[in-house]
Amino acid sequence: MKAIVYHGKHDFRYENTPDPKLEGESDAIVRVARTAICGSDLHLWHGGLPEGIGASGGFAVGHEFLGVVEETGRGVRGFKKGDRVLASCTVGCGDCAMCRRGMYSGCVTMTKGGGASGVFGFSTGLPGGQAEAVRVPFSDTNLFRVPDALSDEQALFLTDILPTGYMGAEMAEVGPGDTVVVFGCGPVGTFAQMCALLRGAARVIAVDLDDQRLARAAKLGCETVNSSKENLGERVLEATHGLGADATIEAVGRADLITQAAMITRPGGRIAVIGVLTEATATLPWFLLFMKNLSLRTGLVNPQNFIPKLLPLIENGRLDPTVIVSHRLPLSDGPRGYDVFANHKENVLKVVLQP
Amino acid sequence: MKAIVYHGKHDFRYENTPDPKLEGESDAIVRVARTAICGSDLHLWHGGLPEGIGASGGFAVGHEFLGVVEETGRGVRGFKKGDRVLASCTVGCGDCAMCRRGMYSGCVTMTKGGGASGVFGFSTGLPGGQAEAVRVPFSDTNLFRVPDALSDEQALFLTDILPTGYMGAEMAEVGPGDTVVVFGCGPVGTFAQMCALLRGAARVIAVDLDDQRLARAAKLGCETVNSSKENLGERVLEATHGLGADATIEAVGRADLITQAAMITRPGGRIAVIGVLTEATATLPWFLLFMKNLSLRTGLVNPQNFIPKLLPLIENGRLDPTVIVSHRLPLSDGPRGYDVFANHKENVLKVVLQP
Amino acid sequence: MKAIVYHGKHDFRYENTPDPKLEGESDAIVRVARTAICGSDLHLWHGGLPEGIGASGGFAVGHEFLGVVEETGRGVRGFKKGDRVLASCTVGCGDCAMCRRGMYSGCVTMTKGGGASGVFGFSTGLPGGQAEAVRVPFSDTNLFRVPDALSDEQALFLTDILPTGYMGAEMAEVGPGDTVVVFGCGPVGTFAQMCALLRGAARVIAVDLDDQRLARAAKLGCETVNSSKENLGERVLEATHGLGADATIEAVGRADLITQAAMITRPGGRIAVIGVLTEATATLPWFLLFMKNLSLRTGLVNPQNFIPKLLPLIENGRLDPTVIVSHRLPLSDGPRGYDVFANHKENVLKVVLQP
Amino acid sequence: MKAIVYHGKHDFRYENTPDPKLEGESDAIVRVARTAICGSDLHLWHGGLPEGIGASGGFAVGHEFLGVVEETGRGVRGFKKGDRVLASCTVGCGDCAMCRRGMYSGCVTMTKGGGASGVFGFSTGLPGGQAEAVRVPFSDTNLFRVPDALSDEQALFLTDILPTGYMGAEMAEVGPGDTVVVFGCGPVGTFAQMCALLRGAARVIAVDLDDQRLARAAKLGCETVNSSKENLGERVLEATHGLGADATIEAVGRADLITQAAMITRPGGRIAVIGVLTEATATLPWFLLFMKNLSLRTGLVNPQNFIPKLLPLIENGRLDPTVIVSHRLPLSDGPRGYDVFANHKENVLKVVLQP
Repeated sequence: MKAIVYHGKHDFRYENTPDPKLEGESDAIVRVARTAICGSDLHLWHGGLPEGIGASGGFAVGHEFLGVVEETGRGVRGFKKGDRVLASCTVGCGDCAMCRRGMYSGCVTMTKGGGASGVFGFSTGLPGGQAEAVRVPFSDTNLFRVPDALSDEQALFLTDILPTGYMGAEMAEVGPGDTVVVFGCGPVGTFAQMCALLRGAARVIAVDLDDQRLARAAKLGCETVNSSKENLGERVLEATHGLGADATIEAVGRADLITQAAMITRPGGRIAVIGVLTEATATLPWFLLFMKNLSLRTGLVNPQNFIPKLLPLIENGRLDPTVIVSHRLPLSDGPRGYDVFANHKENVLKVVLQP
Repeated sequence: MKAIVYHGKHDFRYENTPDPKLEGESDAIVRVARTAICGSDLHLWHGGLPEGIGASGGFAVGHEFLGVVEETGRGVRGFKKGDRVLASCTVGCGDCAMCRRGMYSGCVTMTKGGGASGVFGFSTGLPGGQAEAVRVPFSDTNLFRVPDALSDEQALFLTDILPTGYMGAEMAEVGPGDTVVVFGCGPVGTFAQMCALLRGAARVIAVDLDDQRLARAAKLGCETVNSSKENLGERVLEATHGLGADATIEAVGRADLITQAAMITRPGGRIAVIGVLTEATATLPWFLLFMKNLSLRTGLVNPQNFIPKLLPLIENGRLDPTVIVSHRLPLSDGPRGYDVFANHKENVLKVVLQP
Repeated sequence: MKAIVYHGKHDFRYENTPDPKLEGESDAIVRVARTAICGSDLHLWHGGLPEGIGASGGFAVGHEFLGVVEETGRGVRGFKKGDRVLASCTVGCGDCAMCRRGMYSGCVTMTKGGGASGVFGFSTGLPGGQAEAVRVPFSDTNLFRVPDALSDEQALFLTDILPTGYMGAEMAEVGPGDTVVVFGCGPVGTFAQMCALLRGAARVIAVDLDDQRLARAAKLGCETVNSSKENLGERVLEATHGLGADATIEAVGRADLITQAAMITRPGGRIAVIGVLTEATATLPWFLLFMKNLSLRTGLVNPQNFIPKLLPLIENGRLDPTVIVSHRLPLSDGPRGYDVFANHKENVLKVVLQP
Repeated sequence: MKAIVYHGKHDFRYENTPDPKLEGESDAIVRVARTAICGSDLHLWHGGLPEGIGASGGFAVGHEFLGVVEETGRGVRGFKKGDRVLASCTVGCGDCAMCRRGMYSGCVTMTKGGGASGVFGFSTGLPGGQAEAVRVPFSDTNLFRVPDALSDEQALFLTDILPTGYMGAEMAEVGPGDTVVVFGCGPVGTFAQMCALLRGAARVIAVDLDDQRLARAAKLGCETVNSSKENLGERVLEATHGLGADATIEAVGRADLITQAAMITRPGGRIAVIGVLTEATATLPWFLLFMKNLSLRTGLVNPQNFIPKLLPLIENGRLDPTVIVSHRLPLSDGPRGYDVFANHKENVLKVVLQP
């Protein structure tokens, strides 16, 4: 089959790769209908992988995909050929002590090899979804049925970034009446803003450097701050009678923004970091966190926990995830999609690919 | 001063009553700008009070009011003459073991006399707000400043019924993605519907017998069921893939609707009863509650806990409480307002009075 | 094989019954090592079943059992022949919308037939564990491994009544510093008392009519009230500076005790009912529940949710469930065990049977 | 009056200082019966204060004290001369937006001056309790009555470090069945261990370098690890089937222990830092926090929130805070107490002073 295959830094190719096959009794093969490029795919694109991967060892990338079940292992109970499904980007076995606690991203079974974690498209063990077909392990746990009434694009982002945005709002404990600051108006930041409003925030202040992205946030009901032109701290203090934001969500992935978050969040407030930092360590303003009793949370998303909440919101028209789609390309144009997305060309927000 | 004074069943009169005076160091006198008639005032109207109240012992009724501080006791720290304020309908001392837990309605100080509880307008000890002026005890605890930007009507319902509606959604633990049924489209039911949506419900099914009220609910974003014409149970099962509602809010005050709630709520769901039942006891379908692991909550509202969440939502245009106002009358027309409200005349929803 | 077989009211017989066989791919057959008689088995003993069951249609009763896996279906991932396991009394498929929410007792798959719910030993469809062997459906969801270090009796009550007692403390939201009243010092009441202390209650007041049971509660760290000799209300008010208990757990199964609970619980307090009422309806003191903002919860236990918390507490010696065992009988003496337990003979507390 | 007065680094003197006087209507003067030296007093002792304080500008230090009300301002409602009371170390006005949320340590009123925060004994504005008497502002909010049945030493640590230890267990969301690691067996670490057990932890692993302190932890029911002799990581993995601790509490105040905490805590686990770091910033293992979905919380204690929970536990014998007292000295020996405590002499754990 055809797929976008990893060959190293800045070298993703549309080419032939072996067809996926059932390996375990709980596996399913999904024929992909739509897939998307995620910001975390760019970490691979920009940085390559630390360990060397042989020329012939390329694997399909991508972890956001949706399609139709083509084949199922004998142990699969909930799905059959022809079912329209989406996959969680994070794969868990469903039975281990971590999965039973909803921590699929820490699945004992998937991480046992010691190698790559259970996210599609980052290793040869779990090839990705920017491909014509994908093998999904433990499919009763990791696949979710797509209601007929939803279009592919309405459902696609349930695989990762809509749950990620929601997780940000949940980790920041956003609740009715809160003032919430969201750093970043990219796809994940946009979803965090929408989910903060959905959870009853009184006001969401969206921060970015790009006026076009800010204009989009304004349309969704946010106040906006272009932090290259305005003083964010002053705006937040003004908005909150001098107290600071109840909650701040970092959706960019820069350690200095965590420090900024600590400065603009009120005593007792909550900070969630859903942007992915590229450095292994971060230096934080500890004394400030201490004096202000701030809580700080981060983590990989486990879409399995959020899909049951988010799906009915899409079905009933209360969330429209399609607002972020800026590019629709054939899968064969995937390499160009990466170039556009990585280099912020063509006013890109989110690239969807179709095999 | 003038006030609506209680004289017995169906006998509320607009007449002179003694001016309120400071009695304790924490008291404030509030000159009333707007006040409203509440469904629970009708319990007094219809039923009278159990204990006999002498002809000369009339007291001003009403517990929803807003105005301007006229005078404060020496112990009042947070308010001064001229401040625009609203009062919580439930009065607590702020210092006792119950108030410290946020249970102002169980205030040990206010209930010590053993007599009436600490709600305005039900006794000579705590005359009400359908009057030109009111004495507010423990004013640092029970008064809240009204921001300049808000009109009187925008703020007025924070005194009781907007917090009551919100409390219903909170007691029913309404959260993102839930399907919520609300019995009743009166003022409290309407606010419960708005607050369920605000907390992220995927769908709110509003139930009533009155098509005009249902039409109003539909405008707010609810689905509607006229239970005299449609089968509510079928509608709910259909809407929820056969499971039942996640949460049900009773905002009418009928024991049989609690039984209906138990039938249409899914296993593990939550029922909140914010309608006030007139009977002392209620017969409930216990085996059903047991087999379905349902939780059941009820109670008097403590607006003090909810105003800080709700006020910024009104300020930022995310909640518009004025949608329920159907009648605006001078205070002198209060007795007519009671007649209209009690007898569902003139398509009434909520009556606001102005001294 | 041999089992205790249901033949009607007061007619449980130790006799031959067909060996269990694998029916589904997720089934396991468990050879029983220990089983116990539960208070809810007595409902069957006393009342029989509403619908007629033919003479030849008898089924094995009992839902508390532990043993060794003898055979597994092809779809079973987590268990194999020889594993020492206990089963949850409530059976869920693990995949449906209710099971995914932890509401195994409302499992859509198990209740689909419309017949009996998914509890062992109440129907021919799901024969019970007072038998030499049992078929366990969806065994990856409903079986739990027993650590080698635990004796059979230490682990046995994880199948139902230890989680039930814990659920009572959780439903009543027992937390550090609380004063908790527990009605009933039977097996479930005893576990509720232990779990209330475990969750940090400052004091647990155990209520019963039987001084021997009360003495046992006192040894566990409870204060005790013999409600036939002392005034419970006075004791509670005295213990709580006149406020009432923070939480009350009913572990007897009498509607009048729910009313008593409402009287002795403080405003804003919580009532959990884990005793099983035999009547379909219960008349509750609604006005009192309303004026005191009480929450009321009841339900079937889902041990799957509690075993991961409770098992390490037993392993580390912080909970000793064996304190309740008063009788150890061979399975063949099961019918006598029922007579002893049902008629409160021989100072019985809990009867354990061994095949 | 006499007090321990700050004169600079390592220069605390027992000397005359002006008697406290009522300054505001809500003030109370408390005659001190017992006071104690806290680990955070040592920050002052070791580091001095950043800004220069004149020779004559010395102030009484100390923020843990208990005594008898001597005089009250006119606005004080809840206390009168002769009442036995303890004071919260953190002072809040009780009325501002922060205090109403329970964030007394972020009190808008107390921090308005911009100067020192509202903790006793760190500035001339709010002299401390290692003195014969102290002025307590907003006394209705910050004083708590001591029950007659409690000794001074039983109640003393409610002023700060028992709530701090409890806060650590709460911030780490310790619950029934958890495995909890506590770094540090000093006074605060000891209380964190006791509170983790109280909240139902299955096992608490106490870590320190001092075998005598570890022996004390063992007596309280902890497992112990001397991290200079044993491999903590291995011990934790062994104890948790390879998963890691559910919760870790840092009660030492070293940034490198936060990194260790991240290594030994399981995916989805919680880290609370109640040790006070002396550096303004801390470098944290961000990628690890991210990959493991860890939450991180820190902050100043607000004893007002915890005293109502903890007091009944002491009254009922479920918590004994006196176990930490190693030294009882007259107030005049305070400077020697500091030397002993700061330099770990005489196997010191906690120094109590008596004026």
